Amino acid sequence: MLDTVPADFETAVRAALPEAAFPELSAAYLEEPRGRYAGSGGLLVAPGATEEVATLVRLAQAHKVPIIPYGGGTGLVGGQIAPAGPVPVILSLRRMRSIRAVYPEENVLVADAGAVLAEVQQAARDVGRLFPLSLASEGSATIGGVLATNAGGVNVLRYGNARDLCLGLEAVMPDGAIWHGLTRLRKNNMGYDLRHLLIGAEGTLGIITGAALRLSPLPQRHGVGLLVVDSPAAALDLLALAGEVAGDTISAFELISGRGFEFFAETMPEMRAPLDPVPAWSVLIDLAGASGFDPEGALETLFARAAEAGLVSDGVIAQSEAQADALWALRENIPEANRRIGSVSSHDISVPLSEIPNFIETATARLAGIGDYRINCFGHVGDGNLHYNVFPQPGRSRADHEDERPAIKTCVHDLVHELGGSVSAEHGVGRLKVEDLERYGDPVKQAAMRAIKDALDPHGLMNPGAVLRART
Amino acid sequence: MLDTVPADFETAVRAALPEAAFPELSAAYLEEPRGRYAGSGGLLVAPGATEEVATLVRLAQAHKVPIIPYGGGTGLVGGQIAPAGPVPVILSLRRMRSIRAVYPEENVLVADAGAVLAEVQQAARDVGRLFPLSLASEGSATIGGVLATNAGGVNVLRYGNARDLCLGLEAVMPDGAIWHGLTRLRKNNMGYDLRHLLIGAEGTLGIITGAALRLSPLPQRHGVGLLVVDSPAAALDLLALAGEVAGDTISAFELISGRGFEFFAETMPEMRAPLDPVPAWSVLIDLAGASGFDPEGALETLFARAAEAGLVSDGVIAQSEAQADALWALRENIPEANRRIGSVSSHDISVPLSEIPNFIETATARLAGIGDYRINCFGHVGDGNLHYNVFPQPGRSRADHEDERPAIKTCVHDLVHELGGSVSAEHGVGRLKVEDLERYGDPVKQAAMRAIKDALDPHGLMNPGAVLRART
Repeated sequence: MLDTVPADFETAVRAALPEAAFPELSAAYLEEPRGRYAGSGGLLVAPGATEEVATLVRLAQAHKVPIIPYGGGTGLVGGQIAPAGPVPVILSLRRMRSIRAVYPEENVLVADAGAVLAEVQQAARDVGRLFPLSLASEGSATIGGVLATNAGGVNVLRYGNARDLCLGLEAVMPDGAIWHGLTRLRKNNMGYDLRHLLIGAEGTLGIITGAALRLSPLPQRHGVGLLVVDSPAAALDLLALAGEVAGDTISAFELISGRGFEFFAETMPEMRAPLDPVPAWSVLIDLAGASGFDPEGALETLFARAAEAGLVSDGVIAQSEAQADALWALRENIPEANRRIGSVSSHDISVPLSEIPNFIETATARLAGIGDYRINCFGHVGDGNLHYNVFPQPGRSRADHEDERPAIKTCVHDLVHELGGSVSAEHGVGRLKVEDLERYGDPVKQAAMRAIKDALDPHGLMNPGAVLRART
Repeated sequence: MLDTVPADFETAVRAALPEAAFPELSAAYLEEPRGRYAGSGGLLVAPGATEEVATLVRLAQAHKVPIIPYGGGTGLVGGQIAPAGPVPVILSLRRMRSIRAVYPEENVLVADAGAVLAEVQQAARDVGRLFPLSLASEGSATIGGVLATNAGGVNVLRYGNARDLCLGLEAVMPDGAIWHGLTRLRKNNMGYDLRHLLIGAEGTLGIITGAALRLSPLPQRHGVGLLVVDSPAAALDLLALAGEVAGDTISAFELISGRGFEFFAETMPEMRAPLDPVPAWSVLIDLAGASGFDPEGALETLFARAAEAGLVSDGVIAQSEAQADALWALRENIPEANRRIGSVSSHDISVPLSEIPNFIETATARLAGIGDYRINCFGHVGDGNLHYNVFPQPGRSRADHEDERPAIKTCVHDLVHELGGSVSAEHGVGRLKVEDLERYGDPVKQAAMRAIKDALDPHGLMNPGAVLRART
């Protein structure tokens, strides 16, 4: 038997909203992808319009019932699951998934918060435009979710994070009032930027119900190369050189380690390095530009200049879309190979770009003092965002290292903090990293966050326990 | 005799800070460029370090003395001048103007808030990078000022507003605590985005003392064209076509009206249209890219395709740097010609891009009902940001229309609001547009702004009367 919200609240909500707003609460709403959090119940409400969201929020405030907003359910930090405390309303935006309008001549698209990211991408492509936010979970993740968590992905280097792709918001504030902020403007200095405050607040300051999104011209020419570098430091030098050669056409710049190819050999032998010997370090570089751009030419120029500078020893440049896809498949399958090996501990971190070599070297050295691991370090090196994942040696399993996990996490996060980095680069804080935020976050910023939270949501009912500890 | 702060406060501040922090208060600190506001006095304090700013803020809180932050003094909305209320501290950052560090390999530069914009641009160029924020006042405007007001300028289309160029901030909060948020990270989801809250808050939520700024690769190839279009609507179609042809290399896309050339003929005859007949509407387009980019080729392709589509009837493409500079000089001298004519009323507005033709047509028709004017409408059409300025007919002067000015302003601003636009596109709110914000701003957003202001600055001492009405 699932826990239930207070009966008088449920009665009031059911009287105020249409029948369609009350789908059955399935188990999916009480779990998260990695199984770290499980909710114990609640009332699932799926409003069909912004006004219905506002009605629900007002009733929840009147009855002091917490609200957990739920997007695509793909978050990895427990932001969408409330495992403890008073029984909440689970607010799903799944019935609000329309593309409200597309303005190709403005490079703007306006969508409901429940619209699925992949559908928004497609709607942009349908009018010859690009919505560049791209994530592994784009088939399920919603616009409201990617904005609430300020999601990242593979195109951040060129196009920015989710917040950089949002021109305006519509939201229901904690008191149930609707903020009509769906502006389609590129320049607007009418007061504090409430948009950027709600983006990344993970539903703790209000419910995003709609967004005006920024589109880009759809690139007409596209090229991909895999270049072999000696070291992460050489990869950074290559990035700087690529800036000179290819400017803003660099859409992705992803580091791949030899460990990734080793894991492929063990778990997915069909994935093979197109280079012999298998490189200890390589970079996948993706260039995209307008019709006059010559991506193969730019990649060849880059390769020649990088080889001359001693940065690159070998490489392959895709000569067809199929070859480009095959190179991207190497990068995209790394997480799957990792999953098959089974990590002891995984870390989504960022550091200043120039600290990347130091981070990789020092973290590896320090972890050797804890245990004997294999490390697969890869990711969005152009953004300073690495996935630094720790695995057992062959013949051992993650279970063999269970006790070491907290020490590994602390070791990696302490180093990230020492180097001026972030222990939550693109996944958000959710409930998983509230303690990390308290430990590593700036105390003055933490105090300001608490003051803002208390001012806008004095009863602490909006996604309590996410980002900031719930008041007890 | 200038008004003075309370003697006990001044004594305490002079005891706490070194002698060098107390330059003489000159008249420049009590005026603003258009002469709309004049302060009546105060204590000028120019701290030499962030800790000294913090000391000053703590003392001001203890003695309930308001603080007016002062950057380069170039703001046009009175944000830097407090004309009424308790006598304030005028806090100048002019002694904190160092470039603290440059990280070319990270595309990051860290500067004191008092650093002058042009010096930051130069420091970036010195290492082969671009800091793209570019404004008429860049020789005086400071980094703290451009961030506090979220300044715009000519490169917003490609690189964004000031806020988009800032990775991290150091700031003294209203209670005198220092927020150490000078991160150099591209991805960081550690809690609410306090950076974006302080940017654009015009000193009402804290004092920005330092910033980590985002640099870009320095474009290697550069091209400029002036293309003749039939109408603003054709200019927008041309912008969309340019996106297909030139993608992200479009650095500026500026509308010029025939009225601008008419004003040149009257006031600056050396500035001549390079086309005959003088075009009623034209667009200055600037393309810039990496070494492999061919800007002349792209402009020629754009011209050919636009001519074929009936969007462009004539045009000139610069064949040298000198010709490019001459085309840019036309755009850059429009404000000077306007000044010589003498405007009745000037408006810094933005509307959704697709509403630009409607705005121009409707505003002109409605103003004809108020009086007989000449209108010079020009500006950053690629951003939806127009300068819509109203002038007397030949033989009449602005003084002849003095009484009509409020009606003109209301007419233009009401229309902007109807079309979903902003009456403060790039200049901020300051003290000039507080009433506009109350009239046109979303009431729910206004309430949230007030709640945030009261939570972070409960005594209302940080730049009182700017953005939000001062509590009485």
